[in-house]
Amino acid sequence: MLYFNTPTLPCPITPSRSFRSATMTFYDKLKFDANGLIPAIIQDCASGRVLMMAWMNRASLEKTMATGKTHFWSRSRQSFWMKGESSGHTQTVKDIAFDCDGDTLLIQVEQIGAACHEGYRSCFFRSAEGNGAGIKVTEAQLETPERIYGKK
Amino acid sequence: MLYFNTPTLPCPITPSRSFRSATMTFYDKLKFDANGLIPAIIQDCASGRVLMMAWMNRASLEKTMATGKTHFWSRSRQSFWMKGESSGHTQTVKDIAFDCDGDTLLIQVEQIGAACHEGYRSCFFRSAEGNGAGIKVTEAQLETPERIYGKK
Repeated sequence: MLYFNTPTLPCPITPSRSFRSATMTFYDKLKFDANGLIPAIIQDCASGRVLMMAWMNRASLEKTMATGKTHFWSRSRQSFWMKGESSGHTQTVKDIAFDCDGDTLLIQVEQIGAACHEGYRSCFFRSAEGNGAGIKVTEAQLETPERIYGKK
Repeated sequence: MLYFNTPTLPCPITPSRSFRSATMTFYDKLKFDANGLIPAIIQDCASGRVLMMAWMNRASLEKTMATGKTHFWSRSRQSFWMKGESSGHTQTVKDIAFDCDGDTLLIQVEQIGAACHEGYRSCFFRSAEGNGAGIKVTEAQLETPERIYGKK
């Protein structure tokens, strides 16, 4: 499902202007938190849909750079994971941006299948309604988790 | 600058399907961290551009809901702030989504002017290049910080 009407969008998105900085590396600009982590927003570069947010440490970011596939650090499991390692729903990296404070990443990807482990294209498949009194589901489920992970 | 070619996109973005849940409030689904905070990704609903990421506590989220303007919690200053309170570059809320884990918000807004305090439309105005050896600026600066904040 496309939230944004962008059938002809180039991937990666071509910036309208580009200036180079030869004196500063990308890593010099980043601020990892007290646990050595930085949040990474993952955006579908074809549709513009924000797919998920997960955490990276420097090693997972370097692995992402080196392989062109997103790798993260799981805070709950205290371990590396590659997006799609179980589901096959990998993300091919097209651009890695960082914000003005250097403490958040925005990564443009080509997403295979559902980004969400619950089978939705985006993890953000629900919104508030009625000033927070209720919620609504805003996407159709592409697949069931059982089907994705082969539990049935 | 529009990264996404969406001149006719409705704002807020209309979901293709909607199902209601009457038994669960929005706040019941959210998980604030040990400091009572949740990260909020802010997306321009007209262009699809991710503008910034900032932190909210429950009170700033309720204020955002009640006023329709984004309010955050500054971790460094330990205080509330309304986006645009100094610059006039406010954000009018169109949709508040949350992810499958309930620990991240995605807020669609109508942005006035530059979202970034450095005068760029998006805080994510720089990207890695050369496998992280360098950086590139991918947007034109709309205004100087001095002009925005009246320091000159």
